Amino acid sequence: MEMFYNFNQVEFKEKREHVGIKSITGEKAQLCVIRLEPGEATDHRHPEEQIGLVLAGRVEIFAGEETRELGPNEGYCIPGGIRHGFRALDGAPVEYIEVFCPPKRENVT
Amino acid sequence: MEMFYNFNQVEFKEKREHVGIKSITGEKAQLCVIRLEPGEATDHRHPEEQIGLVLAGRVEIFAGEETRELGPNEGYCIPGGIRHGFRALDGAPVEYIEVFCPPKRENVT
Repeated sequence: MEMFYNFNQVEFKEKREHVGIKSITGEKAQLCVIRLEPGEATDHRHPEEQIGLVLAGRVEIFAGEETRELGPNEGYCIPGGIRHGFRALDGAPVEYIEVFCPPKRENVT
Repeated sequence: MEMFYNFNQVEFKEKREHVGIKSITGEKAQLCVIRLEPGEATDHRHPEEQIGLVLAGRVEIFAGEETRELGPNEGYCIPGGIRHGFRALDGAPVEYIEVFCPPKRENVT
């Protein structure tokens, strides 16, 4: 199993339109860098726990009944099963860390 | 359980001398931001899987028999039980993401 990764040398993979992803998938957890373009709003739920941290840009996040605007160095922890969504703010892309536990197969890059 | 975190408003907690930490601890995984000062070299092993990404600065990482120098946007995945260590390079602090699965109690901030 490869232990080292260089995200400078890989392009974002299109997870779906307006959503790019780079990821490191372990046996137990998965660390992703997500690039969300403006105009896209995600809205879903999944059984995996999701923890994250904004790296650049600003994003509106709703989780359950709560909505917040987060910028760089702000983070979140969404328990499995909670409906949640992300939307880039300020007409600019936002990049953030997403950690999934257990890993999501669709996020393997 | 709190779902949102602002690392701009919290100081690094001293994990030990020369090592600061901020963390978000879920039920299944844990996302930490680590600030490692120059002069400190870590060397240990633990059963938790550890995945990470360098945010700023440069760090030498050994894991098992491999040693690499990583800079911003470079990452790693160290299976549980593998001996590993980190050392800041260039006489400057390094900041990086550490994800632990399951969470480590000592990293709760």
